[in-house]
Amino acid sequence: MRTGVETAFPLVDYLERERVRIEEARGRLLDALAGDAPAAVRDPIAYALEAGGKRLRPILCVAAYAAVRRGPGDVPDAVYELACALELIHTYSLVHDDLPCMDDDDLRRGRPTTHRVFGVEAAVVAGAAFIPLAGRVVVHAGERLGLGPDGRMRLVRELCAAAGGGGMVGGQLLDIEAEGRTVDLQELEAIHARKTGALLAAAPRMGGIAAGAPEEVVEGLGLYGRRLGLAFQIADDVLDVVGNPEALGKTTGRDQVLAKATYPSLLGLDGARRRAREEADAAVAALRAVGIESAALEALAHYAVERDR
Amino acid sequence: MRTGVETAFPLVDYLERERVRIEEARGRLLDALAGDAPAAVRDPIAYALEAGGKRLRPILCVAAYAAVRRGPGDVPDAVYELACALELIHTYSLVHDDLPCMDDDDLRRGRPTTHRVFGVEAAVVAGAAFIPLAGRVVVHAGERLGLGPDGRMRLVRELCAAAGGGGMVGGQLLDIEAEGRTVDLQELEAIHARKTGALLAAAPRMGGIAAGAPEEVVEGLGLYGRRLGLAFQIADDVLDVVGNPEALGKTTGRDQVLAKATYPSLLGLDGARRRAREEADAAVAALRAVGIESAALEALAHYAVERDR
Repeated sequence: MRTGVETAFPLVDYLERERVRIEEARGRLLDALAGDAPAAVRDPIAYALEAGGKRLRPILCVAAYAAVRRGPGDVPDAVYELACALELIHTYSLVHDDLPCMDDDDLRRGRPTTHRVFGVEAAVVAGAAFIPLAGRVVVHAGERLGLGPDGRMRLVRELCAAAGGGGMVGGQLLDIEAEGRTVDLQELEAIHARKTGALLAAAPRMGGIAAGAPEEVVEGLGLYGRRLGLAFQIADDVLDVVGNPEALGKTTGRDQVLAKATYPSLLGLDGARRRAREEADAAVAALRAVGIESAALEALAHYAVERDR
Repeated sequence: MRTGVETAFPLVDYLERERVRIEEARGRLLDALAGDAPAAVRDPIAYALEAGGKRLRPILCVAAYAAVRRGPGDVPDAVYELACALELIHTYSLVHDDLPCMDDDDLRRGRPTTHRVFGVEAAVVAGAAFIPLAGRVVVHAGERLGLGPDGRMRLVRELCAAAGGGGMVGGQLLDIEAEGRTVDLQELEAIHARKTGALLAAAPRMGGIAAGAPEEVVEGLGLYGRRLGLAFQIADDVLDVVGNPEALGKTTGRDQVLAKATYPSLLGLDGARRRAREEADAAVAALRAVGIESAALEALAHYAVERDR
């Protein structure tokens, strides 16, 4: 299943270029927020969003848009703004995850967590403000892209479904419920499919919808995202065992200390690695099955598995 | 400004009848959620929503719909579902407010608070799930009402604006920021206008939009909601001083203990009462200015001030 594409594709340059445009879009969204919300809202939101990270969800959204459009034209700014809506949802989940009543983390990506800077109350409240903000961003970006109200409606629906109880939050609650008891592979996958998979599937789906892709292609993009999401999660589990804490920017071995069910604990290290590669290959196959050939999306699928951080 | 309408209108029967239909709509929403989200999501959401309360926001939404339609026909079920979206937003804010890191309340309306039953982690996470759920409810209800995608889009926009950083959450954060320092009347009103006013204004606006009201009427309904919201808040402050704890179902005198700026502390008890009545009258005047004559909406404005709980 490995093709020449992944080695030929200049992934590092690509990621860097895309991140620049994503950060620009983030800046525009925060400027727009400034006209509407008091500083008490803007400051914690801006702070949490600044923390950076891989920006994987927005990148997947933009790459899917470009893959469907295929034309030589540049990807419009509004697609990057749409893509940021996914990062807003992801970021609020991190702000809440870090709270003292949750994982109780003082640092995220080397900076004090949002509640350490703005207080716990503000972090709880502002965390929830990311969600309607994401809704507004989707509506507005869809408008700027010239999508009809039906297309914008679909984007809103995708976002709500991925963020909500059937998606990310459902996975978080299943995960909380599973704490302290034995979890088998099936249950672990059901948790991941919602907790990280729903948003990682929504990202390329929303890029496809914004580009006017037919339903079948949107489905293919969603399957790609789900498979990539699982590959990414398995790779995370593997890195927690064998990764370099410095490269990762976080302590490793945490899963074992917490006695958490992980892919390496259930499949062994080699079994987990094999499974991650299979998922990445299946992600690429899902794209090709609907006629999408995208060096960027394919490289991203393999990157999910082969990264060292 | 007092008219015969408010005494002639059978408010108690009206509220009871409306609440029955709102609870039915809540049941339908939870049934629909059951097809999609795991029990770990549904249970805390259902529990928090069951707690009851005045259901003021949904009632305002339905009453505005009926006032714009005016015809003899019954209000469709889907309007009650749309109205429940506002209660979803209100309810999540209460779930988060009660958290140990916020107001740390063990009881709400005589029942253990959501985090006391499901744990703090689940209450934080599930709290945030109400927001995308509300988004989906609005989209779906708008569809069932036969609104075009443009109308549904407007409803989504209203909901996001009212819930977000420019609305309710903005007010919550301003309120947190103001803790422990002196607040004047202007700042107090700016906090209330967002914290409770934004959602109470969105409720009749969304009812009006669902009924196809012209923009000018939607604006009038929003102004009515804002004025009513302020009247309601002032009355709350007054009840905290003179109310009967048994009728209220909560301890009184809390504001004074917390040295919180309130209308009675800034205007005196009589001044606060007068101001509340002025706001209720202004709410009614805002309706009439755009040609809306609704015994229900007018009675609700006076109820906001004259209730004993």
